[in-house]
Amino acid sequence: MRTRRMHEVSGHATWVVVLETGDEAMACLKRFAIEEGLDSTSLTAIGAFERATLAYFDWERKEYLPIPVDEQVEVASLTGDIVLGPDGTPVVHVHAVLGRRDGSALAGHLDSGFVRPTLELVLTETPGALRKQMDEASGLPLIRP
Amino acid sequence: MRTRRMHEVSGHATWVVVLETGDEAMACLKRFAIEEGLDSTSLTAIGAFERATLAYFDWERKEYLPIPVDEQVEVASLTGDIVLGPDGTPVVHVHAVLGRRDGSALAGHLDSGFVRPTLELVLTETPGALRKQMDEASGLPLIRP
Amino acid sequence: MRTRRMHEVSGHATWVVVLETGDEAMACLKRFAIEEGLDSTSLTAIGAFERATLAYFDWERKEYLPIPVDEQVEVASLTGDIVLGPDGTPVVHVHAVLGRRDGSALAGHLDSGFVRPTLELVLTETPGALRKQMDEASGLPLIRP
Repeated sequence: MRTRRMHEVSGHATWVVVLETGDEAMACLKRFAIEEGLDSTSLTAIGAFERATLAYFDWERKEYLPIPVDEQVEVASLTGDIVLGPDGTPVVHVHAVLGRRDGSALAGHLDSGFVRPTLELVLTETPGALRKQMDEASGLPLIRP
Repeated sequence: MRTRRMHEVSGHATWVVVLETGDEAMACLKRFAIEEGLDSTSLTAIGAFERATLAYFDWERKEYLPIPVDEQVEVASLTGDIVLGPDGTPVVHVHAVLGRRDGSALAGHLDSGFVRPTLELVLTETPGALRKQMDEASGLPLIRP
Repeated sequence: MRTRRMHEVSGHATWVVVLETGDEAMACLKRFAIEEGLDSTSLTAIGAFERATLAYFDWERKEYLPIPVDEQVEVASLTGDIVLGPDGTPVVHVHAVLGRRDGSALAGHLDSGFVRPTLELVLTETPGALRKQMDEASGLPLIRP
């Protein structure tokens, strides 16, 4: 993981983060968020994964069902945010669209993605800590701005 | 719909807008754009829909064909813009990629999306009103910067 | 191709670029990047293509395999970046998700996309030139921030 703080205007900073072969995207983002104290950040990325696990939230069971992706895929879209969870530590929430060898697409919540050879992320901080609160209806922590 | 103006630098404001179960995304964005007088704004989001209607523009017929999505889906990508239409009121234009239970993806123009349990939007205003003009060849209002 | 520089805050500029029927997206972005001297820029877009060529990076062969898309498609997501290549000229790197008539999605690296009727791009410059270096393991130029 290589990172660079590109600039800052009144607390609005932009970071470029580039992950490399073997990096797992969600773990890297979590570590980076903790190290830099990110409390309200949006992010986008493109690149490729050697393998990944997407997930689908089953509304009846109130749980995420894993969708293993055991093949090299293009990361065609990766969008997410980082805000403080109910316990005050950063929560990284990412959704992704993956492109397979034949061009067909897979999409969902991103549980894990093992980078190969690169994942190019742009993170944009905005001042003002956002916080998640537990939502009883879904059992998920949701942003309450 | 809960909204928060995060910061502003010389007219460049960022909003976080969080929609909740039962909110219809396009109607909420239209109402928000009118209330806040948005005239040049880009947006991204992730979350989930209980159901949605995508659309595909049929070039021969010059009309959008609806694609009903009658199932809970992950909103893997949602990208759009808000600019002034030919009549001076804000036009919200959104495309989305949706992830199904098996991880397969649906994609297109977003006609409507009923949120469940959350849709986390980031809106970025840029100073300088953009305007759409009717395009004779397509019959659509297109941005003319 | 119509372009408008929306604003600038300490070197952080935002551009709106609108492509029209017949424009090829990658060639237009390359030309625009050279003309404006873009060295560190991220971009997103929505719109539609008359036809396009996606690509998938085959890790064993170390080459991109073309995926022809010979039909009108919605550009549901288009994400990319522009940084300086090893030779100092701008490299445009774009991934896209395309929506077909039946709502099914195609995703991958974008080789070319012929616009019809519009592609609405937002480009965000960040100060500080980023540069790609050749990566021996993949044979690709990768960003080294």
